[in-house]
Order: sequence, then C-alpha cells, then structure tokens
Amino acid sequence: MSPSSPSRPGLGVPGSPPSAPPTAAVYCEGNFGRTDGKTANGLVRHSARFRIVAVVDSEHAGSDAGLVLGDGPNGIPVVAGLDAVMSAPGGRPDWFVFGMAPSSGLLSNEQRAVVLRAMSLGMGIVNGLHEFLGDDPEFAAAALLNGVEILDIRRPADKKDLHMFTGRIDSVTCPRIAVLGTDGAIGKRTTATVLAAALEAAGLRTVLVGTGQTSLIQGARYGVALDAVPAQFCAGEVEHAVVDAFEQERPDVMVIEGQGALSHPAYLTSAYILRGSRPQAVILQHAPRRERLSDFPAIRTPSAASEIRLIETFAATRVIGVALNHELMSAAEVDTAIDEYGAELGIPVTDALLRSPVELVDMVVAAFPALEGQSAAVV
Amino acid sequence: MSPSSPSRPGLGVPGSPPSAPPTAAVYCEGNFGRTDGKTANGLVRHSARFRIVAVVDSEHAGSDAGLVLGDGPNGIPVVAGLDAVMSAPGGRPDWFVFGMAPSSGLLSNEQRAVVLRAMSLGMGIVNGLHEFLGDDPEFAAAALLNGVEILDIRRPADKKDLHMFTGRIDSVTCPRIAVLGTDGAIGKRTTATVLAAALEAAGLRTVLVGTGQTSLIQGARYGVALDAVPAQFCAGEVEHAVVDAFEQERPDVMVIEGQGALSHPAYLTSAYILRGSRPQAVILQHAPRRERLSDFPAIRTPSAASEIRLIETFAATRVIGVALNHELMSAAEVDTAIDEYGAELGIPVTDALLRSPVELVDMVVAAFPALEGQSAAVV
Repeated sequence: MSPSSPSRPGLGVPGSPPSAPPTAAVYCEGNFGRTDGKTANGLVRHSARFRIVAVVDSEHAGSDAGLVLGDGPNGIPVVAGLDAVMSAPGGRPDWFVFGMAPSSGLLSNEQRAVVLRAMSLGMGIVNGLHEFLGDDPEFAAAALLNGVEILDIRRPADKKDLHMFTGRIDSVTCPRIAVLGTDGAIGKRTTATVLAAALEAAGLRTVLVGTGQTSLIQGARYGVALDAVPAQFCAGEVEHAVVDAFEQERPDVMVIEGQGALSHPAYLTSAYILRGSRPQAVILQHAPRRERLSDFPAIRTPSAASEIRLIETFAATRVIGVALNHELMSAAEVDTAIDEYGAELGIPVTDALLRSPVELVDMVVAAFPALEGQSAAVV
Repeated sequence: MSPSSPSRPGLGVPGSPPSAPPTAAVYCEGNFGRTDGKTANGLVRHSARFRIVAVVDSEHAGSDAGLVLGDGPNGIPVVAGLDAVMSAPGGRPDWFVFGMAPSSGLLSNEQRAVVLRAMSLGMGIVNGLHEFLGDDPEFAAAALLNGVEILDIRRPADKKDLHMFTGRIDSVTCPRIAVLGTDGAIGKRTTATVLAAALEAAGLRTVLVGTGQTSLIQGARYGVALDAVPAQFCAGEVEHAVVDAFEQERPDVMVIEGQGALSHPAYLTSAYILRGSRPQAVILQHAPRRERLSDFPAIRTPSAASEIRLIETFAATRVIGVALNHELMSAAEVDTAIDEYGAELGIPVTDALLRSPVELVDMVVAAFPALEGQSAAVV
C-alpha cells in the first residue's frame, strides 16, 4: 500500500483498526539502545500501529534489534542506511519514523537530509519531535512533491479544542494507577505497557493512557503528548484523555504513563498527570545504578524514598510498589536490590522485564482487593 | 499619537523608554474589582507601559476606579461603554486592553463585538487571553482595515526561540524571592509589585520577573506568560528570563511572580517557577477568608501551613513570610489574623496593602542579612 493512497489507515483517528498495520522503518542513527533512542527502543519492543521492519543505526548494522536491546532476538534487522532499508525483503516501508528524542527536540542538518531523502523515496514521515515538520516549508514542499504525508505526533489540538481541567475526573470510578519515576527515560512507559498487558492477561479490562509521543506512535488509543501542550491546558488534557477512555471503554482499571519526574529540574508534567488523572495509586520506576539524571549529569538522581515522599506530599495518592530499571546491574544485583528496596520502603519491588509481570499485577491487586473478584469472574 | 503610527513605542522590545506612555482604556464589563477582572484591577493599581485613562464596566459607571477597588480615589473614571470612552477629555485612547482573565481564556460573542468596535474606532488591541486575536481572520482583517495593531501578550516565542532548562540559573548569585500563593487570583502579583517597589525604595536594586500576562501588560521588562508556553519549555523560559534579567541589570535582589498554587488542581506553573528560578526564599500569599478555590468552588483552599510544607518538600527553598489578602475581612480581623498566623507558623506575617511595605522588606532582610549592608551603602 502506498503512503499516499487514500485508503491507507489514518493515525490518531478513532475507528476500525486496519486489518494489517502499515510498515515502518525507524531511524535512530548513533542512538539505538541508548537513552536518546527511547522512541526506537520502545517501538522495537511494542508497536500496535506500525509493523516495524527495520531500525537504521550504522553502529549496529547487521545485528538483530532485540539483541541490541538485550531482550533476545526479535527478527527486526538493524541496517546502515536508507539504501539497506529499500533493498530489504519487504521493499519500501510505508513510513519512516524519526526514532530519537533529543532533549533539544530539534533536527540537525544531517538528520534533515535523511528525512528529506526518505520522503523522496516515497515514505511518509512520523515525527515525534517538538519541531513540527509539517510547518517547515522545505518539508511541506517535499511532502507535496512526493505525495507523502507528515505526521507530527506532538502537535497539540487547536487551542479552541484543548480542554481546561473541570473536575470531571471524579466521575471515573475505576482504579487509576500512574507509573511515575525518578528520572526521564528510565522505563516508565515500558513498565506501564508490561503492566497493562499483564492486567489484561489476568482478565481485567485495562486501558493504558499515554502521555508521550512514543506511546502515541506505538498505538495508544487514548492519550496526549503532554510536553507540547501549553501549561494552562495540561491538567485538563490529561483529565480529558482519562475521562474519554473511561467513558468509551468502561475498563476495570486504568494505567497512566508518567513523564520525567516530580523532582526533575525541568520535566515536570508528572505534576499535571497527578492532578489531571488523580490516580489512587502510583508505581515508581527507579534505576538503582543511575547516579546522575540522564539529561542533567550535574544533578544527582533522587532516592526512591525521597521521590515517594514528594509524590505522596504533592498528591492524595500512595506509592504501592517500585519497579526497578536494571541498567548496569547483574542479575544477582537485581535480586539483592529487590530485597533491599523492599525492606527499606516496606512495599513490593519488582523488575518489569526480568521478573514475571504477574508481580506487577499482584502489586495492583494487593492495593485494590476488589479487582481480584473481577479478575476471577472473567478468567 | 495614532496607534498605527510607526513612531509609537513598541511593546516588549527592550530599548529606550518612551517619554510618555501611550494611553489605554481597559475593558472589564461586569468584572471590575472581581477575581476575573484581575488584569484590569492590576492595571489600575500599577501600569508603567500604558497610562490608563478609563475602565469600562457599566455596573460601576460614574465611579472612581480606585474607590471601586477599595484603594482610595485615583482619578481613573469607570465608564459605561465605548461611547463614553471616546467622549472623555483626552479623546480616543491609543489602546483598548481586554482586562479580564476568564478561566476558559476565550472571548464570548458579545466581547468579540466590543473588541471589533474598538478597532473600528481606531484603537489598537492589547489581548492577554489564550485566544490569539491576531490569528483570527475576522480580527486580523479588522486590524488591516482600521490600520491598528493587535498585541497578543500571551503568544509565546517561536518554538526555535524557546529555551530549554540548562542549569544556568546557578550562575545567578543574588537572592531570588518567589511570591507564591494558596490559590490563583489571590494577590501574588500585587504583593510582588509592592515588595519590589519597597526594596527599591530601601536602596536595593531590584528586578521583578513577571510570569503572567498582567505583569507583561503592566510593563515588566523581564518575564514570560508562562501558562501559554508548551510544558517542555516552561522551566527553561523561567530560567532564561531570570538569567537574562540578572545579566542585564545586575540587581541586588530579584522578585519572581508566582502563578496559581503548587497545590492547585490545574494551575501548576509555580512548579516550573520553583525549578526554573530556584528561589532561595518564598513569600506565601494567603486569603484567610477564601474557603473555596476561586475557579473550583468544589475544592477547599489549602491551609497556609500545608502549602508551606508542600513548597518546602517540592523545592530546596524556605518560606520566609506570609502576606495576607484581606478580602472579606475587617481591619481588626486582619490584625488578629496577622498575630495568629505569625504564632502558628513562626514566620513574619503582613498585609502588603494595609501594612507598611517596609514589613515586606524586613522579611527579606531578615532572611538575607547581607542585603542590609548593601541597602545601607546605597541609602
């Protein structure tokens, strides 16, 4: 199916899911598997909206993408550039996803050239940056010339369509669990995704509300790229996404993706996530070996205990468990850390990738015992 | 001077101050003196960028604007409508300021008609709403047709010119005092303005950094309408405004206007103000008789003590004093409240409008004793 075909399923438009998702290559030159490659890393692990057929990063060309992430092979090749993308078995992908999240949010000149070339080869562009490529005369002209689309995932609604906070969140009666963290790019989205799938597997109807561009590219049906929203509307946009999801889906439980950290020097939209979604419970994502904030190495990462204290002072909620990010840790160190954090904090601790996802479900059911009956009734 | 004259001093452009500020009428129909009229209330009390010649509010037509606010007469008439504005002694003002801050941030149809008529009469429009009138085809056409300008005060810089947080705030060596509060529209800006003037009067070079549209309309030389900025850039825009002001002015002390409340259900930009400006001290504005939040009457106003606890948990700062808003209070009740809050909280308490502004200066000097020497050296 050509990207310019009018029959190609749209993105972000509620409606019938396509029979087969469109294909996409993910561009992540020099960053795949690293912190700034988090959009690509996430798409390789989970993608409902696109079928990922290749990752572009010349540093890992020839490897399996799953192996680069340390997850085990997944059959998605890492290739050196656009020529390799085009000559792969499936031919030209429908879309070219810009899969990096640099803190500046802006493209370099070299990156601009790659994106323009992808368009000239007939691929549509999926862009999660703060820079909206559709507003750039050069990209807009290239889209027209090549008959392809540009999807600026972070573009907020027109101001007249943005929502102010109203308090309607109090009409949402199901448990809401926010996954917050002690830093950005620390695994909140991954844990939220694993948790939502595990709750579903346990027979609980679950909705994951995304709050970042990666979730939206991955295919979250409800959510907003919060950091691109004017501050006045942030609490209201989160509230609206949660209320809308609840009214449409009537789930048993909702999981809300967090952003940055409440203690962060700059990435504070978790403050709006707490106010807009009013979660009764929080799961905290923490990396024991991350001594410095990923984007601000001059600043020490807070302790899990201090972040929990801050979250529980800031909002009428409680932290019901901790999920560890095991970066720089051996399996034995993870086991020890799980025991030590559990003893120190007095709440359950797990690792969403190394331990069974059932441990996350157990955390939630322990906090909301009524869910156990609902789960059992369905299973 | 005609509003379309190229020689009329621009707004928001640093440079030589005009010899005489342009004149302006402030539109505040049905809201002057009330919470939603806070832009008009503020401009009547303090305006360096415009000389305010009239307030439009038919409910108070014929009154003196200062008397309506309970401040004593100030010679600014409140009039019933545009005809009365035009027939006033000075004739047509240069500008028509939309002086209300409804929480929706959008104009009603009736308000649109008034603004269009003001343009047809030859007045430029100063708009502090979230709705940018310059982007509205009808207003844009009217501006062209009538040869007048529209100033959308809240319009943020182009994305490429917005600032990310960098940590450069640590290069600012002078004391920074943020004025936060327990609700929106509670008097933070008024207290910040009184404090800054009193510090100047005490011989301390002081810069007030504005963070809302009213401060910018009033003429704050440094600042940003923070609630209109995409969340990703909020901490950075505050940091940039503070660093820029410090580098340009080398003040002895800086005062930073807060917004909403850190505990607020929706208006949370004080979180970014704390992170971006890293104030060593906070003065908390509180209204003892405000039982419910002004925009969310279902929600109780927090206590001063709980807000102080939240602020000091959220940021490495301390609350050095409280300024009371005396709405619904007699003078005797204010005296009692000052004593009681002082005893309860163990920090100085004052009222920025009813007590001597020197009490605010004393609060600051007690927290930063080094300022006393600087002040004495200048006085």
